[in-house]
Amino acid sequence: MMNKRIYMDYSATTPMREEVLEEMMEFMKTEYGNPSSIHSFGRESKNAVDTARDRIAKTMNAKGKEIYFTGGGSESDNWAIKGYAFANKNKGNHIITTKIEHHAVLHTVEYLVKNHGFTATYLDVNAEGLIDLEDLKKAITDETILITIMYANNEIGTIQPIKEIGAIAKENKVAFHTDGVQIYGSGKIDVDELNIDMMSMSAHKLHGPKGIGALYIRPGIRLDNLIHGGAQERKKRAGTENVPGIVGFGKAAELAYEDLEERIEEKIRLRDKMIDGILDNIPYTLLNGHRTHRLPNNTNISFRFIEGESLLLSLDMVGIAASSGSACTSGSLDPSHVLLSLGLTHEVAHGSLRLTIGAYTTEEEVDYVLEQLPPIVERLRQMSPLYEEIQGGN
Amino acid sequence: MMNKRIYMDYSATTPMREEVLEEMMEFMKTEYGNPSSIHSFGRESKNAVDTARDRIAKTMNAKGKEIYFTGGGSESDNWAIKGYAFANKNKGNHIITTKIEHHAVLHTVEYLVKNHGFTATYLDVNAEGLIDLEDLKKAITDETILITIMYANNEIGTIQPIKEIGAIAKENKVAFHTDGVQIYGSGKIDVDELNIDMMSMSAHKLHGPKGIGALYIRPGIRLDNLIHGGAQERKKRAGTENVPGIVGFGKAAELAYEDLEERIEEKIRLRDKMIDGILDNIPYTLLNGHRTHRLPNNTNISFRFIEGESLLLSLDMVGIAASSGSACTSGSLDPSHVLLSLGLTHEVAHGSLRLTIGAYTTEEEVDYVLEQLPPIVERLRQMSPLYEEIQGGN
Repeated sequence: MMNKRIYMDYSATTPMREEVLEEMMEFMKTEYGNPSSIHSFGRESKNAVDTARDRIAKTMNAKGKEIYFTGGGSESDNWAIKGYAFANKNKGNHIITTKIEHHAVLHTVEYLVKNHGFTATYLDVNAEGLIDLEDLKKAITDETILITIMYANNEIGTIQPIKEIGAIAKENKVAFHTDGVQIYGSGKIDVDELNIDMMSMSAHKLHGPKGIGALYIRPGIRLDNLIHGGAQERKKRAGTENVPGIVGFGKAAELAYEDLEERIEEKIRLRDKMIDGILDNIPYTLLNGHRTHRLPNNTNISFRFIEGESLLLSLDMVGIAASSGSACTSGSLDPSHVLLSLGLTHEVAHGSLRLTIGAYTTEEEVDYVLEQLPPIVERLRQMSPLYEEIQGGN
Repeated sequence: MMNKRIYMDYSATTPMREEVLEEMMEFMKTEYGNPSSIHSFGRESKNAVDTARDRIAKTMNAKGKEIYFTGGGSESDNWAIKGYAFANKNKGNHIITTKIEHHAVLHTVEYLVKNHGFTATYLDVNAEGLIDLEDLKKAITDETILITIMYANNEIGTIQPIKEIGAIAKENKVAFHTDGVQIYGSGKIDVDELNIDMMSMSAHKLHGPKGIGALYIRPGIRLDNLIHGGAQERKKRAGTENVPGIVGFGKAAELAYEDLEERIEEKIRLRDKMIDGILDNIPYTLLNGHRTHRLPNNTNISFRFIEGESLLLSLDMVGIAASSGSACTSGSLDPSHVLLSLGLTHEVAHGSLRLTIGAYTTEEEVDYVLEQLPPIVERLRQMSPLYEEIQGGN
């Protein structure tokens, strides 16, 4: 049992696919040239970067020249929001976002408000994590320049009505950025149909390498650089291109969209087995996030009378790697801002568990989790005075 | 002859060392966890990141917690300068830099001046690329908050008097940032002895991977985040850590500083053979940069009556990969701002060639360049009307 290593944290990061690493190897070994160099070493690298750009663009009905490589999803979010805000401050100073954004969006907006004279509206969400489109419409003022609302939430998996948000943004001539880090590679996206002006992406969420991301930018959208310097990325993002990373990202994107529909179906089947298996067999549990407007790989459950961290450690001891929410905030003792925004109490939010599956997840692994979880939960609850009270009352 | 591929562009980027790739492989294949996750997959990654941080710190007499990983040298420069300027604007709005900085510094300072209310002094350099310390002292005002001067120039190789600059900064209570991208891995650095408050580094310049850099930050130096979000890098630089990149950077740094002295000596020997071999055998040539205060791997020569680009293409045809200056600006038709700052005319600046050697350069390769270059230069000059005039006049 101790030798098992079952990875249920695909939303934190994913293992690279073999084909991805294989394509990267050439550019880590032989073709190491700088794409900005004009000699043969550089040309090979430049061609590879262009191919990757086209591969990614194709998956979202965009053009290669609309894809800009960055160092990751957080950089993409920061660039989109700060870059757009700084470049358009003559038009207005108001930004609309939600209370459940990833910190790469939330802290960026807060920074602009605190230090650079911007104002912001943080939209509420309902108990399932969805924003109210009427709230969004009402929040728009003459000063509003940017709406930044995540496509799918990284903790609870809820998918927002992106098409409707895009339409409202377009109607009001406000730019629309979406943090697509969790959806990209797991959902069909058409940036035109959805009226997306900017979208952040990260390769390591879709079996690509870490340290590489991208920002889709619609032509005509003007933003200040976040990283000034050399003329890379059509003068919009300086720094020697991470060629192996870019190549790997391109390959991962291509593979992710090859059999997307089938893979979504299979993930949903396993996800629903996980969700039902937990809710049906363990009392005092609650599914967080929307039941169907939900990432195909996300299970997020609150277990009353339990500390999420104890649960994670107990699962780790039987070889199951899971998460209590976003990996990026695991160092913090505060309960998840996302779960609190759903209306959960601190106590319930603290007892939450995120199980996210991926391309390599098997039915056996799901079964193993469903077998291990009930006794662990029961054991931990036995240590809780609150649980004792309730049990005594039964 | 056509099958040869001789790489003389190590200052643009370097091939990874085998040992570096080897250490990275584990984290690209098996240990793919997110270092912020608290399960076993995450712990392995976190340990690896900490080891790399310590390895790098050790090379410059710093502590691990003073090293912050970034997506590359340009990001490090942008973060140091924008981050420090924004965080300290209550103290003053004046920045001092030089006319020969890398664009990651120069364009960043220009952006702060143009869009965010800062002012800047751009110090001149002499014909060999050195600043005048008296100019620096005179430029400091009550408003000066930051001095950002590169350690060694990427085009001409000139090494500035960093210790003296650091002392002046300290004496005047002004923060001192240095772009160490070209020197790090090729020169002995002690951040305390040199009074460096912040230093930018990039792994791919020292046989490490692309897409990963670092910023040394002295304790007590306060800067705004450039990338807000998760709690990574002690809350100063958000984004899932590029674990394989970080591991590779740590290994590359360790290797670079293992036999540093000997390798410097060998590089200087080959560099001087290259410089003398060109200056002695090809007329109308001029060494750019200081003869001895110079990167051990840098040869930068102006060939009169020649277009640098034609020279590069001709060299490429015989398998030699070189550069006309910074790879980052190769897309531009303007002559190098560095060469113009030395006092070169546009014509002479246009005819410059940078040959930068590295760990894998052999004496045979240097000999091959010295053999190929004279006839190529002569052939190109034969096509120049100006050259004809001068020849006719002899």
